[in-house]
Amino acid sequence: MRLARPLEKLIDELLKLPGIGPKSAQRLALFILKMEPSEVRRLAAAMIEAREKVFPCSRCGNLTDQDPCWVCADEKRDESVICVVEEAGDVMSIERTGYRGLYYVLNQEPHLMEEGALEKLKLAGLLDMVDKGRVKEIILATNPTVDGELVARYIAGMVKAKGVKITRPAHGLPVGGDIEYSDALTLRKALEGRQEI
Amino acid sequence: MRLARPLEKLIDELLKLPGIGPKSAQRLALFILKMEPSEVRRLAAAMIEAREKVFPCSRCGNLTDQDPCWVCADEKRDESVICVVEEAGDVMSIERTGYRGLYYVLNQEPHLMEEGALEKLKLAGLLDMVDKGRVKEIILATNPTVDGELVARYIAGMVKAKGVKITRPAHGLPVGGDIEYSDALTLRKALEGRQEI
Repeated sequence: MRLARPLEKLIDELLKLPGIGPKSAQRLALFILKMEPSEVRRLAAAMIEAREKVFPCSRCGNLTDQDPCWVCADEKRDESVICVVEEAGDVMSIERTGYRGLYYVLNQEPHLMEEGALEKLKLAGLLDMVDKGRVKEIILATNPTVDGELVARYIAGMVKAKGVKITRPAHGLPVGGDIEYSDALTLRKALEGRQEI
Repeated sequence: MRLARPLEKLIDELLKLPGIGPKSAQRLALFILKMEPSEVRRLAAAMIEAREKVFPCSRCGNLTDQDPCWVCADEKRDESVICVVEEAGDVMSIERTGYRGLYYVLNQEPHLMEEGALEKLKLAGLLDMVDKGRVKEIILATNPTVDGELVARYIAGMVKAKGVKITRPAHGLPVGGDIEYSDALTLRKALEGRQEI
């Protein structure tokens, strides 16, 4: 199929984005052609600006445009709890729960099949925070996957000696979920973790 | 939730795109932050360039960066057939079928609830093409919706007097579809249009 060259180029670029297949790319491209030119420029500028100005916080690894990030800089946050997560997107999700402690973002996809992958995790910053003394609990909120579980255990092993409480978010049924359709492992965890009401 | 300001701005801009909800916007934004800066600039430039350089062909309304568009300019296309579609995206879909005639793109969403919506359709170009004499068939490929049907009938009424054959794509079962799950109307049309094999 032939297309106007700039349209074809735009579709090709959009196809590189995650979750955007040929149909979505075409729909997005056609939508962009109908947008006000000023809006297109604003969208384009927002992309470039975000890429240029946002970087990982030097203390916790959270995405920020100022160093330290707004979580680390906020004196009202509870410095006795650190929540370790895999990615900055996880911070956004946990913030929505009302969590008020600090974070430590690994910012690394550990390829656990690779030799020495766990040893490559950058944990110096986390150990630093623990050594400075105020930390009482570390919540290991890596994903509830095999890899996330292994990373959590590895980190737990590194920190245990420092006498800090180490926790992991509970497994169980998602709120609004359906017992009939929940997988056996989740359901077993939910039953094991049952609570009196 | 607080976010780095440029990240927040990017998510807000992405949310304006069709089919992009809060979760997709966040995922796209985080992906863009991980892209090579040069790739982000290429994506941004592709948006701006497409918006600036692509416009509707003065003859048929198809999206193009040269006037007339590559379909109208192609001497090998069959000038005796014109396929009338609602939007440029429809041209892309019909091109994939191997259709070799010309197009006429309405480029208008007719809001048929509005007074005089049909009269506002820009059909002068189509009538011009018909008047120039080589057209033998007009395929009215507006969407198989109530609005599309009405637009098709309105156009048919306008062109009929000119002695041109007027057709509409067949209704029927989608290839690979499932009779059990097809709606009654489609199935009825499929049965009505049954063909000997």
